[in-house]
Amino acid sequence: MSRERRNRAHDAGKWRTALTCIEPNKILVRGYPVDEIMGRLTFGEAIYTLLMGELPSPGIGSLMEAILVSFIDHGVTPPSTLAARNTATTGAPLRACVAAGILGFGRHHGGDIEQCMQFLDQGLELVRKGTSYRDAAIDIVARAEDAGEPIPGFGHRFHTRDPRAARLFQMALELEMEGAHIQMIRAVELVMAGRPDGQALPVNIDGAIAAVCGDIGIPPEIANALFIISRVPGIAAQAQEERGREHPMRQIDPKDHVYDGAGQRRLPDKRR
Amino acid sequence: MSRERRNRAHDAGKWRTALTCIEPNKILVRGYPVDEIMGRLTFGEAIYTLLMGELPSPGIGSLMEAILVSFIDHGVTPPSTLAARNTATTGAPLRACVAAGILGFGRHHGGDIEQCMQFLDQGLELVRKGTSYRDAAIDIVARAEDAGEPIPGFGHRFHTRDPRAARLFQMALELEMEGAHIQMIRAVELVMAGRPDGQALPVNIDGAIAAVCGDIGIPPEIANALFIISRVPGIAAQAQEERGREHPMRQIDPKDHVYDGAGQRRLPDKRR
Amino acid sequence: MSRERRNRAHDAGKWRTALTCIEPNKILVRGYPVDEIMGRLTFGEAIYTLLMGELPSPGIGSLMEAILVSFIDHGVTPPSTLAARNTATTGAPLRACVAAGILGFGRHHGGDIEQCMQFLDQGLELVRKGTSYRDAAIDIVARAEDAGEPIPGFGHRFHTRDPRAARLFQMALELEMEGAHIQMIRAVELVMAGRPDGQALPVNIDGAIAAVCGDIGIPPEIANALFIISRVPGIAAQAQEERGREHPMRQIDPKDHVYDGAGQRRLPDKRR
Amino acid sequence: MSRERRNRAHDAGKWRTALTCIEPNKILVRGYPVDEIMGRLTFGEAIYTLLMGELPSPGIGSLMEAILVSFIDHGVTPPSTLAARNTATTGAPLRACVAAGILGFGRHHGGDIEQCMQFLDQGLELVRKGTSYRDAAIDIVARAEDAGEPIPGFGHRFHTRDPRAARLFQMALELEMEGAHIQMIRAVELVMAGRPDGQALPVNIDGAIAAVCGDIGIPPEIANALFIISRVPGIAAQAQEERGREHPMRQIDPKDHVYDGAGQRRLPDKRR
Repeated sequence: MSRERRNRAHDAGKWRTALTCIEPNKILVRGYPVDEIMGRLTFGEAIYTLLMGELPSPGIGSLMEAILVSFIDHGVTPPSTLAARNTATTGAPLRACVAAGILGFGRHHGGDIEQCMQFLDQGLELVRKGTSYRDAAIDIVARAEDAGEPIPGFGHRFHTRDPRAARLFQMALELEMEGAHIQMIRAVELVMAGRPDGQALPVNIDGAIAAVCGDIGIPPEIANALFIISRVPGIAAQAQEERGREHPMRQIDPKDHVYDGAGQRRLPDKRR
Repeated sequence: MSRERRNRAHDAGKWRTALTCIEPNKILVRGYPVDEIMGRLTFGEAIYTLLMGELPSPGIGSLMEAILVSFIDHGVTPPSTLAARNTATTGAPLRACVAAGILGFGRHHGGDIEQCMQFLDQGLELVRKGTSYRDAAIDIVARAEDAGEPIPGFGHRFHTRDPRAARLFQMALELEMEGAHIQMIRAVELVMAGRPDGQALPVNIDGAIAAVCGDIGIPPEIANALFIISRVPGIAAQAQEERGREHPMRQIDPKDHVYDGAGQRRLPDKRR
Repeated sequence: MSRERRNRAHDAGKWRTALTCIEPNKILVRGYPVDEIMGRLTFGEAIYTLLMGELPSPGIGSLMEAILVSFIDHGVTPPSTLAARNTATTGAPLRACVAAGILGFGRHHGGDIEQCMQFLDQGLELVRKGTSYRDAAIDIVARAEDAGEPIPGFGHRFHTRDPRAARLFQMALELEMEGAHIQMIRAVELVMAGRPDGQALPVNIDGAIAAVCGDIGIPPEIANALFIISRVPGIAAQAQEERGREHPMRQIDPKDHVYDGAGQRRLPDKRR
Repeated sequence: MSRERRNRAHDAGKWRTALTCIEPNKILVRGYPVDEIMGRLTFGEAIYTLLMGELPSPGIGSLMEAILVSFIDHGVTPPSTLAARNTATTGAPLRACVAAGILGFGRHHGGDIEQCMQFLDQGLELVRKGTSYRDAAIDIVARAEDAGEPIPGFGHRFHTRDPRAARLFQMALELEMEGAHIQMIRAVELVMAGRPDGQALPVNIDGAIAAVCGDIGIPPEIANALFIISRVPGIAAQAQEERGREHPMRQIDPKDHVYDGAGQRRLPDKRR
């Protein structure tokens, strides 16, 4: 019996993992030695490789970094951030604060990317059957409204025009990565813009990420993982600031804060 | 009263944040518009900027990415990963699995970076008072051993030579970023190597990161935040694999698994 | 303006809570001074009072204690318990272990009470419209099977006859607290028992609790809260045992354990 | 070889648990069939039995229930409660809200029982060596103050006289369960009362529980488990109220609330 066949027999009945192979003094992430990718892949590229199994193309790599950066922080008022800060004020360790923050990505907060991907896919199924993008958009918007549900990926409790969405779409255009999902969300945007005053809602960053992820082949559950990963630095930074800057056991009123950090500035020329 | 003074009066008594300024249609992270840094900073650079307040230099940026990549995944057996997989097998949402995983960064698992930074700082305080690196290393190792404590940043339950530590030190050398902390840990390494057979312990990745963070000015609590951030993609990927590949409510024996992913491979030439 | 009206004006726009009133040196839980109920209500009665707003009747109080006791521990193999033990082995504090354990109450583990209550309510709606219990049971079982879903509240991965379910039904009978929900689940049980060999599934404890909660007027979301509350002592005890009895950072194989505690025993006569 | 010896050989190398024995259709908690204790032990008695291994005596059982009831809820302002409410407002499931709340039992919030038990034990060690309670109290208070630490178990951010502490001490007296720990904390209380105006701090509920647990033989880590268990119903009730009564994604100002529940009332005569 060959060594390979013996190994296979020995492995029968074991459970399987395809992510990372650990041997003494060797760590292979998706086949790549981790010490080889250190310094050669960025964190964003390594995240993509781990989740998707292959290295990203340069264009996908750029979109990946932009998606991850887009959620890096959203100030002190999101409930997930407040859960983390309220945990921090008790003197809990940072990991407990971050865990509490992550738990606040519920139905109303952060779940929109997956839902918007499914929403766009409903429209694209109609398109594949011969419906025009415009008619497909009208159809799926009507379906959502008949069900009394908000249109996922549209509107924001704070911004009337989400600057992150515009930037992500512009990058996809420049990198020539636009596909059917972006076309579909653009069609939905036109339908939304044609609604009576006060009901027009612009695409938000969740919608933009949903469309871009759809076009670069990232499935909804991986998009959801990206969302969680991208929100952790902001939650950790907010909890850290709470621990370092405020006295313990304070009562945190989210509306009662003021920003006293760096004024608006631009990246140095060489980074633009 | 000038508008500025009125604002200041109005802000008296409010609590303060220096991380992110949110205004309608504007998000400034440490002063930089988030839509400007999208596509221009990598995720790793943006994380550094958010946590430290300023853009990283190119050398620090490279070390930053390498540190974040070094922890990206360590296979299925770490207890934090198993907590996440056991949560995933119940059908819990991904965010709950990730939160459960993060909670497993306890005293014995992931706390070594902060402890090693304090350990090295003890030695460097002696150096500043005139002790040689060698004598300082002997002193702090003896102190830890007298207290019955392991030397933080040394040894690994799996690897006899941690390939990630070697790579990180090599990068610091090539980037000319070596400083007193690396010199200190090198001195400790020599002391450890001189111990009787079977007690020699090599520097691990926690030790390497502690030394590098010390030399590039990252304080222990930020290094701890980096550790948590860097472990999230691996935990999310493991939980995702559990959800996608295994049947719910299974009994997970960590020793009973086999790797069936990509074979060992190298980055394409242009990435090396 | 009367003092009361002034107070009401002052309170306009505030958010409201009806659970507990805190004043200096006074704590009223649902109106009862906490120092008055200490030693006069059991923990189970106090939990009911807090969640439902009124004291339980003696019969409801007894069922309440029995429901809470029924879930007190289920050994080392439930995934939620393993998440807590894997967290404990890292040296994490008890609260982190308990939090990790609670997160493992997912779709496949612990969600059955709420689902079974909704399932029984579907049947009772038919009964209210004139259908017999038997026909209503046939109808809702068929509906679940057509949807490819398991019957909530029936079957157990371990027990063929759940001793807790039998005991709870017996108590409801003795206390004369049986109502329409128990009648409904009995009808479903008969339908299930009539299925071909190997498909007959008995009522489990989730089903029994769902029926009893329905009959004593506890809504599904409160039943869900009771489930979480009742599981916490077991998770805490298991995490505590892991911390106290095992060495840190071990690999926990759930199948590889043996029970070495007290042998089977009975309550002393005066407690029976 | 006897069956018992075979079993023992077979069990060698397995890990051990003494809490709960699970066999098909049988669940023994500390040896007691769970269906036998349902309806015969209260939840509080079952918790004690699970954690301590034996049934409580009637006196200990009463103190146990009182301890568990004492923490049942403390209104909307504790940071742990606010973490749970902020998680609830995102639409997260109840278990995620409860987990977030539990994580907020940090150094400054809920850790006092364990610390106070250690504090009292320091004093009792002096007493065992011949020091009087009074001198021991003076000594340990001075030690804590020299270290710049607050006296654990004394003072409250809200109450000047904690009604729960008074009630628990009264119960211990009536049940004739007072021992050395209560004597010790009484001595500390006298020392604290003798301090200059404005520094006198009364015993709080943490201190009372610490002393009572010490006297009835509950070790600090079990007292900590009791604390977590006792806080869960309040956190669950608060999260539930947030989900049921408020609109999602609101900004929660803890100071901006008003109580609109039941007015102060007494238990019916037969319960007093």
